[in-house]
Amino acid sequence: MNNFEFINPTKIIFGKNTIAKLTEEIPANAKVLMLYGGGSIKKNGIYDQVKAALKTIDHIEFGGIPANPEYTVLMQALELIKNENITYLLAVGGGSVIDGTKFLSAAAYFKGETPWDILTEKIRTEQGMPFGTVLTLPATGSEMNSGAVITRASTQEKLAMGGPGLFPTFSILDPQVIQSIPKRQLANGITDAFSHVLEQYLTYPIGALLQDRFAESIMQTLIEVAPKILKDPKDYEAASNFMWSCTMALNGLIQKGVPTDWAVHAMGHELTALFGIDHARTLAIIAPSHYQYNFETKKEKLAQYAERVWQINSGSLEDKAYAAIEKTEQFFNSLGIDTKLSKYTKDYDGTAEIIAQRFTERGWLGLGERQALKPEDVESIVLMAY
Amino acid sequence: MNNFEFINPTKIIFGKNTIAKLTEEIPANAKVLMLYGGGSIKKNGIYDQVKAALKTIDHIEFGGIPANPEYTVLMQALELIKNENITYLLAVGGGSVIDGTKFLSAAAYFKGETPWDILTEKIRTEQGMPFGTVLTLPATGSEMNSGAVITRASTQEKLAMGGPGLFPTFSILDPQVIQSIPKRQLANGITDAFSHVLEQYLTYPIGALLQDRFAESIMQTLIEVAPKILKDPKDYEAASNFMWSCTMALNGLIQKGVPTDWAVHAMGHELTALFGIDHARTLAIIAPSHYQYNFETKKEKLAQYAERVWQINSGSLEDKAYAAIEKTEQFFNSLGIDTKLSKYTKDYDGTAEIIAQRFTERGWLGLGERQALKPEDVESIVLMAY
Repeated sequence: MNNFEFINPTKIIFGKNTIAKLTEEIPANAKVLMLYGGGSIKKNGIYDQVKAALKTIDHIEFGGIPANPEYTVLMQALELIKNENITYLLAVGGGSVIDGTKFLSAAAYFKGETPWDILTEKIRTEQGMPFGTVLTLPATGSEMNSGAVITRASTQEKLAMGGPGLFPTFSILDPQVIQSIPKRQLANGITDAFSHVLEQYLTYPIGALLQDRFAESIMQTLIEVAPKILKDPKDYEAASNFMWSCTMALNGLIQKGVPTDWAVHAMGHELTALFGIDHARTLAIIAPSHYQYNFETKKEKLAQYAERVWQINSGSLEDKAYAAIEKTEQFFNSLGIDTKLSKYTKDYDGTAEIIAQRFTERGWLGLGERQALKPEDVESIVLMAY
Repeated sequence: MNNFEFINPTKIIFGKNTIAKLTEEIPANAKVLMLYGGGSIKKNGIYDQVKAALKTIDHIEFGGIPANPEYTVLMQALELIKNENITYLLAVGGGSVIDGTKFLSAAAYFKGETPWDILTEKIRTEQGMPFGTVLTLPATGSEMNSGAVITRASTQEKLAMGGPGLFPTFSILDPQVIQSIPKRQLANGITDAFSHVLEQYLTYPIGALLQDRFAESIMQTLIEVAPKILKDPKDYEAASNFMWSCTMALNGLIQKGVPTDWAVHAMGHELTALFGIDHARTLAIIAPSHYQYNFETKKEKLAQYAERVWQINSGSLEDKAYAAIEKTEQFFNSLGIDTKLSKYTKDYDGTAEIIAQRFTERGWLGLGERQALKPEDVESIVLMAY
């Protein structure tokens, strides 16, 4: 096991009818900016629940944060924060709204001239404007971590940011919110969370027995509840386990003391930036090719994953490892998620070269748990994913 | 799954040669009281490592906190805290030293006249004097939770306390510390952590699939590493998994959203108070009888535990459940831990009645996950454990 440091101060309020509790979590003297997305919360009743809870709290609203939170939209919200002397942010949404709110938390206290520098200069935020979240879409884990990914359409970029000052103060997780989520987005959420675990698990053995088992626990649970959620999002037992699994998949715990990969995300982000493909689907496109391409360095963990998560107990280590990749792809397919780029766009020709070129231009030194993947490897992996 | 709230702000610094890092965690202007136990840290080198790290920090020491931290000893330390204007506490030890430090953290800010009231009046500490820990004995999980158990010899009492103000600010976990721990105490640590999981897991099914799997993960890991640790505490892989498992067994995570029992601890505490038996051993004495006595209400979870943790896959649900109790007792025995009270004392006659009487006198309303166990049930369980 590698040495590690772990801290996660976010307060989780989990369960049925918990949205009203946000009143208790926001300081009485705060001036709050409530942030949300495209307006689905106005149809499913969450907006009304939040507004009722904010009744006695001084607040204004900013809606319209898009999926893949866009820098230019967020800059409008930042102006509002400054003009209205906002002291506290409340994200009501999924990963995009929460990530956008993290950017605003950082940007509100940022001393530099151009907030985009936080992303390009990789500036870690030690202290941001305090914020809470009401999660409306389980998937990214952003509700209990200190990272965010922000998109800038004008440059087709999608970049990561973070820092210890960007943990939500509190996050409210009411599993009932999934009842109104379209199946497509539920499938995305399951795929996203599952991929988060794969990135932190499918590397090489390091003797972190407990972390491995926790990772396997999350994957087993997602596999168990996935068909139930797609069949009936009112199944509260399935919904609550889905929601808590998504949070635990990326709140820092399972990555501590182990090597992590994140190459699938790095390549996937480029597919979203280039084609606008849903984030989760880009992961499902890249993952099978990535694990096949890196088979030799990952086969021990792939075989362990095969045995413990997919109950594949016969054959050689290699047989099991291959079967696990197949099972993973079939799992994504069973959710209605295509795992080939050509199913999403006709203009895929040349994509592998473009992505490799982009990484080269960014002066990038190597992807994956051993930082061993060069742009030419990326090109091969993306090509396999056509 | 039940509704829950979860927060755990303790910073964990985990790994080889991490004790020196405490310098970075203590505020520069702090006046520190370093607390420790019987002096074993002076023999195994931990004292020297801590002193070296405290070189530039204003500090004094208080040693001699006994196993089962004793109120009268702690009151001497409290006097020192007040006379010397201490602002920060540093616990260097196992659960007893850390629990004692939590009492001092609470007592230092307590407004009442008699600090013992914190225990008898069940006063929750919202804010205590800040403190960090250097863990020297994995077992209790106290390094990452906000609870403590304090003993008072004059009244033969052992009572619990806690509150959100009693999380350590930081805890340093260097698995190498177990190299100098006597086998007896290593066996106690494994048993203690394993019992913590049982108390939060062996209740009734509530559909908390992820929490169940996390609990099973910790137990599987403890079972896997236990013989390795007892054979060679220098086995770093085993030591690090042991240490992290003990922390995760009682840092709040696996108890969220599920019913919890804690009757074994309640009865066990009485055996320590009456006979001075090591805490972990009292749990091993009570647990098998407790699970047999409450077989009907616990058999579903016992059978799940049998299948997933002990790989018992044949027979009826009842067969599996019984076999799991046997396996648990055999596991404790394999660590050199006796599971009958009569192996520890010749004066066990009448113990069951005395303990039942004590609970009655405390006006106690019912133990276990359904608060259904009355003093007469306690009497029967303890009698079975003779």
